[in-house]
Amino acid sequence: MIDRFRVPESEATIVTRQALHATVSGMFETLTVPESDAHQAADVLVAADLRGVDSHGVSNQLRSYLLGLINGEINPTPTWEIERESPSGLTINCDRGLGVIIAPKAMQMTIQKAEHTGVAMATLKNGRHLGMAGYHAMRALEHDMIGVCMSSTGSPLVLPTFGREARLGTNPIAIAVPTYQEPPFVLDMATSTIAANKIGLARRLGTLLAPGWIAGEDGTPLDHSVPAPPPLPGSSGSGYPPRLLPLGSTPEGGSYKGYGLACMVEILCGILSGDGFSMQSKPGVYRHMVAAYNVSAFTQIDQFKSMMDAFLHILKSTPVAANQAKVLVAGEVEAETERYRLLHGIPLHHEVVDWIRKTCKYLGSPFDL
Amino acid sequence: MIDRFRVPESEATIVTRQALHATVSGMFETLTVPESDAHQAADVLVAADLRGVDSHGVSNQLRSYLLGLINGEINPTPTWEIERESPSGLTINCDRGLGVIIAPKAMQMTIQKAEHTGVAMATLKNGRHLGMAGYHAMRALEHDMIGVCMSSTGSPLVLPTFGREARLGTNPIAIAVPTYQEPPFVLDMATSTIAANKIGLARRLGTLLAPGWIAGEDGTPLDHSVPAPPPLPGSSGSGYPPRLLPLGSTPEGGSYKGYGLACMVEILCGILSGDGFSMQSKPGVYRHMVAAYNVSAFTQIDQFKSMMDAFLHILKSTPVAANQAKVLVAGEVEAETERYRLLHGIPLHHEVVDWIRKTCKYLGSPFDL
Repeated sequence: MIDRFRVPESEATIVTRQALHATVSGMFETLTVPESDAHQAADVLVAADLRGVDSHGVSNQLRSYLLGLINGEINPTPTWEIERESPSGLTINCDRGLGVIIAPKAMQMTIQKAEHTGVAMATLKNGRHLGMAGYHAMRALEHDMIGVCMSSTGSPLVLPTFGREARLGTNPIAIAVPTYQEPPFVLDMATSTIAANKIGLARRLGTLLAPGWIAGEDGTPLDHSVPAPPPLPGSSGSGYPPRLLPLGSTPEGGSYKGYGLACMVEILCGILSGDGFSMQSKPGVYRHMVAAYNVSAFTQIDQFKSMMDAFLHILKSTPVAANQAKVLVAGEVEAETERYRLLHGIPLHHEVVDWIRKTCKYLGSPFDL
Repeated sequence: MIDRFRVPESEATIVTRQALHATVSGMFETLTVPESDAHQAADVLVAADLRGVDSHGVSNQLRSYLLGLINGEINPTPTWEIERESPSGLTINCDRGLGVIIAPKAMQMTIQKAEHTGVAMATLKNGRHLGMAGYHAMRALEHDMIGVCMSSTGSPLVLPTFGREARLGTNPIAIAVPTYQEPPFVLDMATSTIAANKIGLARRLGTLLAPGWIAGEDGTPLDHSVPAPPPLPGSSGSGYPPRLLPLGSTPEGGSYKGYGLACMVEILCGILSGDGFSMQSKPGVYRHMVAAYNVSAFTQIDQFKSMMDAFLHILKSTPVAANQAKVLVAGEVEAETERYRLLHGIPLHHEVVDWIRKTCKYLGSPFDL
């Protein structure tokens, strides 16, 4: 819902979904990712760009995935396996496979379980990045289920309240809920005030970070706008300062709540899977959780969807605060952006397109943009 | 974790847990609540006071429960029933029964299901207030499970981001996680920046509301401290202005995340149960959700608890920010308070004790404080 990160039209190359998908799939395939898995990975990345979640699309994520595949941190052909299984539960060892490839498989199995039991959940250990968490939650929608996805990010970036050193990942939570007429409710939020990737985007676009997003070196939350700090020495991709603030920003603003939610994500993804937590991990290790709630196990699906429409409609028709345009609901802007970009194409920063062109040449994969 | 609401020693009467429990149980029994249910209700209220969550103990909640029983809004002998059931799911109609009584029964059934299936969840319709949400999540701990509880509060009090009229309840989320040596991790948070009851407490204690807690009449988040507004005309209990801000407080601070989480709670409690949402409800109607995740369905319980201890220890040993005392973890202060108050008694404001005395006399129930 924050527009400051949109790519300005003048700095963008417009590409189609199909071309971007084909180009990205091809890059994965040249790195020995099996074809269907490469398509899946491209699907997650392009979905983020389609929905306007540029921080999680090809601009930021693709290069780190390719780098990980090249340097061996990411396993292109993982032997992922189910380590523990119950009627409603799964623990999956990802064998260093990409979350953008394995989380959809885990979600599929979770949905199948929820068809029988009403509710199911999987926890995923030894994984890699899963892209936009909302993508995985949204897999439940076509099954008339509510989908949930959380991901415990591999490097500590976020301060606990009252702390001066990062101890937690940005640890996103996503939930997707089916509707009739309205776009689905899709909440997809970092438990930090701002997602880490937005630091890199702000640096690229020259925008300021708002008050309450990061702390100073002594751990005090910064209450004024600041330029994005330079990348950490040796960091790949966007780089970021590991002093992001948890949602709430300050103790009086309720930052212990964002901090607590970040802990919850570490617990459900990392500790429940038996794998560990951010502070114990090698950078680049991610753990995940997906869940599905079968609506018809709890109520009539038709009634549920109508009630969701009414709920979202009432929220959107809330009288507007002074100097504001309208009240939005989670997933609304993304659904609008998706409709627009499916018709008119996806704007990518020239710098990103240049990088993709060069990388395709380097990999020997077709460049179709 | 905010101390501004503690009762000053000079204004407090110290009471024992046993005496408070007996007195409160007796009050419920005179209002035809069955003995075991009365004990359960007292247990939830006294647990809040023991843990220092005074906003959800006898000071604020008891009077509204008794009033509801007297005026017929709350059913003292509900015929609650299971409306829909699957191996891992339950929909329960509370028949206007108090959440402090029915949520523990729902959690018990949910835990039994999770013993078989790994994960289970119940949604509760047509309920009344359930007290401190963390109490219900914590029921899972002795079963070596993770417990979750959410509650959709009956009156719209919280603004959607960019809105000027309240559309959502304060909608708390609680999660409790078992440990070995460390106190259990217990996150119990309103999805608004501040819980509604804290407005009443601030008024009683004459403390100011912090920046970011409420909005002005035009919907603009207030960025300065203000006195607690006067009670709404005709409101029972504490009264509050229906312009609380969602966690994050401002759009740039991420208030759409707190707003989104509040929506999630309305969906999982109210819409999934088939009952409705805050804006459609009569005031005083609450809907709930409880869930249990059986740790041993996902990993070894011993390993899990040890890892939880290590996780919490690493968080607590984070180097401290300038001018701060220590880094806390969720549930730590509450566990310390509980230990202290079990030994030394519970401090209740004189005004509260006076009210209990008078009410016991009115009801004809024994006053044991």
